[in-house]
Amino acid sequence: MSYFGDLLSTVFERRYRKALSAEVDDRTTTELCKALLTSHGEVSGVTLARNILDRYAEMSEPEKKAFFEFMTHELEIDPDDVTATLQSYKDNPSKATYRAFASACEPKRQELTRRLNQVPGATGKLVAMRKDLLSITRDNPNLEPLDVDLKHLFSSWFNRGFLVLRPINWESPADILDKIIAYEAVHAIDSWDDLRRRLKPADRRCFGFFHPAMADEPLIFVEVALTKGIPNSIQDLLADDRMPIDAHDADTAVFYSISNCQAGLAGISFGNSLIKQVVSDLSKELSGLTTFVTLSPIPGLNRWLDHAGLTADTPADARALAAHYLLDAKRPDGMPYDPVARFHLGNGALVHAVHSDADISENGRRQSGGTMVNYLYDLSQISQNHEQFVGEKTVVASDAVKALSATVIAKSAGD
Amino acid sequence: MSYFGDLLSTVFERRYRKALSAEVDDRTTTELCKALLTSHGEVSGVTLARNILDRYAEMSEPEKKAFFEFMTHELEIDPDDVTATLQSYKDNPSKATYRAFASACEPKRQELTRRLNQVPGATGKLVAMRKDLLSITRDNPNLEPLDVDLKHLFSSWFNRGFLVLRPINWESPADILDKIIAYEAVHAIDSWDDLRRRLKPADRRCFGFFHPAMADEPLIFVEVALTKGIPNSIQDLLADDRMPIDAHDADTAVFYSISNCQAGLAGISFGNSLIKQVVSDLSKELSGLTTFVTLSPIPGLNRWLDHAGLTADTPADARALAAHYLLDAKRPDGMPYDPVARFHLGNGALVHAVHSDADISENGRRQSGGTMVNYLYDLSQISQNHEQFVGEKTVVASDAVKALSATVIAKSAGD
Amino acid sequence: MSYFGDLLSTVFERRYRKALSAEVDDRTTTELCKALLTSHGEVSGVTLARNILDRYAEMSEPEKKAFFEFMTHELEIDPDDVTATLQSYKDNPSKATYRAFASACEPKRQELTRRLNQVPGATGKLVAMRKDLLSITRDNPNLEPLDVDLKHLFSSWFNRGFLVLRPINWESPADILDKIIAYEAVHAIDSWDDLRRRLKPADRRCFGFFHPAMADEPLIFVEVALTKGIPNSIQDLLADDRMPIDAHDADTAVFYSISNCQAGLAGISFGNSLIKQVVSDLSKELSGLTTFVTLSPIPGLNRWLDHAGLTADTPADARALAAHYLLDAKRPDGMPYDPVARFHLGNGALVHAVHSDADISENGRRQSGGTMVNYLYDLSQISQNHEQFVGEKTVVASDAVKALSATVIAKSAGD
Amino acid sequence: MSYFGDLLSTVFERRYRKALSAEVDDRTTTELCKALLTSHGEVSGVTLARNILDRYAEMSEPEKKAFFEFMTHELEIDPDDVTATLQSYKDNPSKATYRAFASACEPKRQELTRRLNQVPGATGKLVAMRKDLLSITRDNPNLEPLDVDLKHLFSSWFNRGFLVLRPINWESPADILDKIIAYEAVHAIDSWDDLRRRLKPADRRCFGFFHPAMADEPLIFVEVALTKGIPNSIQDLLADDRMPIDAHDADTAVFYSISNCQAGLAGISFGNSLIKQVVSDLSKELSGLTTFVTLSPIPGLNRWLDHAGLTADTPADARALAAHYLLDAKRPDGMPYDPVARFHLGNGALVHAVHSDADISENGRRQSGGTMVNYLYDLSQISQNHEQFVGEKTVVASDAVKALSATVIAKSAGD
Repeated sequence: MSYFGDLLSTVFERRYRKALSAEVDDRTTTELCKALLTSHGEVSGVTLARNILDRYAEMSEPEKKAFFEFMTHELEIDPDDVTATLQSYKDNPSKATYRAFASACEPKRQELTRRLNQVPGATGKLVAMRKDLLSITRDNPNLEPLDVDLKHLFSSWFNRGFLVLRPINWESPADILDKIIAYEAVHAIDSWDDLRRRLKPADRRCFGFFHPAMADEPLIFVEVALTKGIPNSIQDLLADDRMPIDAHDADTAVFYSISNCQAGLAGISFGNSLIKQVVSDLSKELSGLTTFVTLSPIPGLNRWLDHAGLTADTPADARALAAHYLLDAKRPDGMPYDPVARFHLGNGALVHAVHSDADISENGRRQSGGTMVNYLYDLSQISQNHEQFVGEKTVVASDAVKALSATVIAKSAGD
Repeated sequence: MSYFGDLLSTVFERRYRKALSAEVDDRTTTELCKALLTSHGEVSGVTLARNILDRYAEMSEPEKKAFFEFMTHELEIDPDDVTATLQSYKDNPSKATYRAFASACEPKRQELTRRLNQVPGATGKLVAMRKDLLSITRDNPNLEPLDVDLKHLFSSWFNRGFLVLRPINWESPADILDKIIAYEAVHAIDSWDDLRRRLKPADRRCFGFFHPAMADEPLIFVEVALTKGIPNSIQDLLADDRMPIDAHDADTAVFYSISNCQAGLAGISFGNSLIKQVVSDLSKELSGLTTFVTLSPIPGLNRWLDHAGLTADTPADARALAAHYLLDAKRPDGMPYDPVARFHLGNGALVHAVHSDADISENGRRQSGGTMVNYLYDLSQISQNHEQFVGEKTVVASDAVKALSATVIAKSAGD
Repeated sequence: MSYFGDLLSTVFERRYRKALSAEVDDRTTTELCKALLTSHGEVSGVTLARNILDRYAEMSEPEKKAFFEFMTHELEIDPDDVTATLQSYKDNPSKATYRAFASACEPKRQELTRRLNQVPGATGKLVAMRKDLLSITRDNPNLEPLDVDLKHLFSSWFNRGFLVLRPINWESPADILDKIIAYEAVHAIDSWDDLRRRLKPADRRCFGFFHPAMADEPLIFVEVALTKGIPNSIQDLLADDRMPIDAHDADTAVFYSISNCQAGLAGISFGNSLIKQVVSDLSKELSGLTTFVTLSPIPGLNRWLDHAGLTADTPADARALAAHYLLDAKRPDGMPYDPVARFHLGNGALVHAVHSDADISENGRRQSGGTMVNYLYDLSQISQNHEQFVGEKTVVASDAVKALSATVIAKSAGD
Repeated sequence: MSYFGDLLSTVFERRYRKALSAEVDDRTTTELCKALLTSHGEVSGVTLARNILDRYAEMSEPEKKAFFEFMTHELEIDPDDVTATLQSYKDNPSKATYRAFASACEPKRQELTRRLNQVPGATGKLVAMRKDLLSITRDNPNLEPLDVDLKHLFSSWFNRGFLVLRPINWESPADILDKIIAYEAVHAIDSWDDLRRRLKPADRRCFGFFHPAMADEPLIFVEVALTKGIPNSIQDLLADDRMPIDAHDADTAVFYSISNCQAGLAGISFGNSLIKQVVSDLSKELSGLTTFVTLSPIPGLNRWLDHAGLTADTPADARALAAHYLLDAKRPDGMPYDPVARFHLGNGALVHAVHSDADISENGRRQSGGTMVNYLYDLSQISQNHEQFVGEKTVVASDAVKALSATVIAKSAGD
């Protein structure tokens, strides 16, 4: 009945552990790491790996920092070795010379990480280890090369081809649902009753990506509302007393919340794949769906307005300024200032509509004065939008949004 | 009901494919590969990857060779770039300089392979691609660096922590069983009736490792007989008319066949982990088991005897010569000449007993004159055996086998 | 991994069994039955039930006959008790009087059967017991009342609402597939290769009804071919070398074999429900399907022709006679003489087309000279056809079949 | 992902329903019932049954009462028919005469109920229908014969052999857990946090019986605590801040709450089977368990003390009186007055220990002044205890409890 599979701790291992367990083994953790790197075969490798992970779990923050320093500096490449093996490979390209070069270029900490991953359940622990690392690295930039390596490995392990999309609903295991409550990052879920309202009604869906080696941990999830027409406020969409509709009557799927769950997978993007897969699955299930759209926050709006010295006096003003911001507020590199805009535009969506008083929660007021935006995923245009955005940094928008934005520019020109 | 998960081809993708499908896209495959490597985000990446894999599937052998040459030579490292980024990193170790170095050292073919793997079902196709490569490389050693990279990637993807052990029995899906018949490499399965005899009786077991992204393809499997006492012949063990015993009455688990299934995963070892996990699972299920042993072929025996000019006149001779071979026939590097011996001794097993007339099949006669060997996995000794074998290249054996071997040496000394 | 659920034999039970096991308990089987009927609570009931079933499994045919005689005659109603309780209920209808009457009317053998069914796995054994009974009853009609009771109970237990439809395909467990081979009653499956040809291609389907308490035993299954157009011969449909089509290209689903699996469920009909459910599931999956049709044997044709002194000289003759037979050959009660015709016409199908040389197997030749028939399930007409058939015993047929039949009548009138 | 199986509403049915749906069909419900009883085959039967159930779902209480009166009185046996068929069977026992008698004895309401059960999902609706009936019957005893029939049918359908035991834990679907909260009848679960404390810790278990045709509805469940030693208070056992222990360290399994879930299955007992199966499963999983015991309420204690004019002044008094009550307070039929005592003693348990201040909740105080009892399931004695209790109505108890009880008797004799 467990979500995926159970990788049981083994009798076989237990027998070894008595002899070789973390407490009994009087070698230091770094000595264990070196032993793991040199172990031939796997007879004792799994035991060593388990001991190292067990010890890591008990470490204080300074000990973790020391452990990361060991990985960064002692399991570092040898530049002379790189240079020498590169020369050999250039002079005499062969299997042996290339293998030597590849081996010289890759710091031992990568191999150590792979060997730690032999232990059942290790993948999640390694992801959590990178979360610690990212936190410690902030004040210790010298550890950044280690993070480069972990991110590189995780990108390979968490390749889209290895992920599994799972619906998350009121028939899902409670331990998964616990995590949905914990990880929801956009519109907080404040109780199990609130969660039930988001998952159980016939017109609500939720999907997440999972990795088989971390079967009870969602990596990212998206919450979807099935509606008639495009919604213009989150409070209506999530109202306690709203009347659910039959999913087959819906014409629109609204992605109203996307949350990344694993801080240790920072920088490895799943959102684009998730949205595409969900659009695909919903299209197959519900042939009445014609519109795929978000109802998204505009997290950078107020910060930018403050900076620009602009204020909205009326709801109409608020919408116009939001439109202007989404279309024209740019970073130095020419990309939109707003992070959510960058995500959806990068996926090929376009700015479809802007609504004032659409999120009247404290958080919504603070970040955007309550204004929200619909990004539209128009399947016939997505590829072209994406190319324009990536290539020419063009923000594609509906005529209505462009017109709204133009009023600000006209007004500001008129000032 | 599918074995693991179903990674469906997607509506979303299908819409793209019309516009961008392999046949319609008039770019060459290498152009598609370059486009895949430069694609920002994943909007078109999956479509490109799918097209490349579709085209690969249609390639003739010369086209495959050309494709591999492209990967080997055009997606190669740039030595100057390696040297320059190494220097920068040495001068100024930072996230940016390390990332630049790591990127320079890794040939683009690795990133291409990872991006190809985004497509659902791609992992199995990439494994099959390496099978093709290994075949073509035999006459084209210049392609070997590509194989080094693929093996490196696959070692990471097929890490023990990602594998799942599954029992394979008469309740397993027929499509899995089809593959057991096809992949059995030691004692051929000649019909579904033969298969049923190996899987269905209460005293027979089979286990395989699977990877979640190749859910209907075993990677390796082992067949086990549960017996009273240690068996001394494969024909008795597999006799059509034998009487099964109750599994709870067995004291011995006999590993009588281990088969690797994926030529494209050559050099990535699963056998040791498999045996350990199976010993563990069987121990938990059947508390009466006290002995874990193999009944193994001696594939190199006759070749070596021929070479050494030795012949066995009697069954007793045959046993003695086999004992001598297993203990004393060594490669130049000091390791045993026999590949099966190297595998089990490397796992920490010891040479327990030798039996003549133990495999009277044509194949058994040809390779070892019908002689077979039991390797014993004594849990209390495994670690020590392993260390001795790996460290000092000592072949651990029972006194009986040592005595048998000694008779040959004595005789030969006496000659 | 087992098909449904595993109802394990229990430690708790095992402890009892030692004390109370079938061998040790020196009471006779009929004494055990009486004890089971009087046992209060269930503490020892399951053990008693298991012992009785274990003993039954060991009985010779005469012992079984004696056991059935015990059930029929000693666990019989008491007519005086029926009369007395009926009178009480008439005089004073109440819970108590009705319960007494209901209890008096139901022979104890029904309660015994229900109590035997407490044991995990008992349902299948009881079904097998009725198979034995049906065989013994042929020569012992005095046992028929027992069969009336068993059939009554089984009708309740195997109610449509308790059955589960499962696809049977090449991913199904081998132990289920073993049974498909064994139970196929229309066109024999002669090997696993033959089975693979019926289950694996994209244009083949098979579905069966299962009962949760007999999870690895199909009750009935139907084999389906997806085709373009309506087929006119079984040998073409099952040709070894035919080219499968894409299921989405099919316009027709052909039910070419329906097999009941459990002789012990004789007289309890599942076929109508099965066909309806399969039509429904296929319609949902494959929107291109517009025609649902059988390719059916005509098992009574030759017997009837012999009886009627008719012979077919040409294929055209054969078709005309078959049409005539299907439309006009009737039993004394006015229902069609042909059992397969009765089944499909009773379901609301109509006689659509007749084909000569459509089954050239030995069996096909023998029963119908190779002629076969398509019954058409036209969803818009099914209810009306059914009413006409059940009410007025009208055989609905296509104009073509009617015309064919008319030629025979005309000819015979002309003779 | 659904708990058991999904019995989908069918396209096929939907097509019929348009023509024959409950709203459109202008026959009365009783006419539909009569049509269902006379329908040949099943072509329209499922549609009729669905319509009847749909209409029932919309009925007001008076309409339900009228419907039950129809079933009770119009679908009643015909006494003359019973008498006549009985006579025929006596005169000429045969299949035909017995079938006629059996048919005459069984009121048509039983067959109607079976035919209603053909619809997927009907079983749960019929169980709910009996819940309504039981409520209405209180004031309408003339409906009791209908309840006798429904209970008879349900006893057959919910036979132990058809039930499946499932662990209920923190990986169970939320919709099942919702029901655990709703159905807990002994110690209320007041929030999801409370539920998590009962299901998630390593030393807590919960098991329920399910029926395959009502897969998301538990029938009965038991909550278990794994402890060292026998607990003497529920507040300690359920304390928010208690420290869980490792399940493998426990020597005792405590059944501290058993709840029946389905009012419509009143009178059909599952508790004995559930406890036996759970004892069995836990024994297999955790070999350290040596003691199986309850921590049970004494729901009738205070009522009886009031009646007897007894009061407890001290905790010691309370215990003694409780012991006396459990051993000596009897109904007129000689069985214990306490319903929980009757249940566990009937299962073969014995009264092991009595604890004052063991349940200081409002409910605990009210029913028993906070006193609770441990019933012990001693596997070696269970059968003998059961026989004594059922046969001679002996309440088996530990010496300690007997001694406690004796002090009351002595004192009262001394008064």
